[in-house]
Amino acid sequence: MNPPSDVPSTDLSTALNTVQWNQDGLVAAIAQDATSNKILMMAWMNRDALTASIEQGEAVYWSRSKQRLWHKGESSGHTQKIISIRLDCDADTVLLFVEQHGGIACHTGRESCMFREFDAQSTSWIEIDSPLKDPADIYG
Amino acid sequence: MNPPSDVPSTDLSTALNTVQWNQDGLVAAIAQDATSNKILMMAWMNRDALTASIEQGEAVYWSRSKQRLWHKGESSGHTQKIISIRLDCDADTVLLFVEQHGGIACHTGRESCMFREFDAQSTSWIEIDSPLKDPADIYG
Repeated sequence: MNPPSDVPSTDLSTALNTVQWNQDGLVAAIAQDATSNKILMMAWMNRDALTASIEQGEAVYWSRSKQRLWHKGESSGHTQKIISIRLDCDADTVLLFVEQHGGIACHTGRESCMFREFDAQSTSWIEIDSPLKDPADIYG
Repeated sequence: MNPPSDVPSTDLSTALNTVQWNQDGLVAAIAQDATSNKILMMAWMNRDALTASIEQGEAVYWSRSKQRLWHKGESSGHTQKIISIRLDCDADTVLLFVEQHGGIACHTGRESCMFREFDAQSTSWIEIDSPLKDPADIYG
């Protein structure tokens, strides 16, 4: 017997199997602010991270440096509530629309990690956004 | 003697050396529509691709499948005029703000490659955007 139609299936395996995990078992994950549409950051997810993100409704990434699941905001409090998740045409990138708690996604204390812009005149990267909060106050 | 300050330096090497190229010599490159702020696609650039993008003012990626430089739109005509280029905090992702020629970034004929959304009820990916043009008409 099929479950009643108002009970969502909890079997994520088909959706997870659609994702084209790379040779390290990862998929690129872009976080975009659902209100401002600013790109906040780019990180990576493995199967467990995407599963946790879906189940918890908050962004959980795979930290390549720490080699463990990384619940975004676990140290800073700057969690990301997931509004929706997109998958791209070749299924190797996910896009998260998020509400960024505290308005700060970057470990430098900035709203977004994308705070350097290429300046053609000087052929150099210029910081165009300032920290909203001192990282020492975030992680101290 | 230093060059006059109104003559831009053409030496990109310092800016390119700031980028943290991965073990394959690549950096993730996100293209965002400069007007709508929609994420159009995610691809990869090597040093030559980023150099070409800066010099030509149009997005040039590194095709991992074809293992060659890929001037976006070379087959479809759907070029991307670069408005600005950002670099993230750990310098392994660039963000291009672009004007998408033809309004179609995806090889499926859609505006954006991010056209599938996770549906919690059915735990499946749902196509939420339709092609604007038949790919056969784009590439035929």
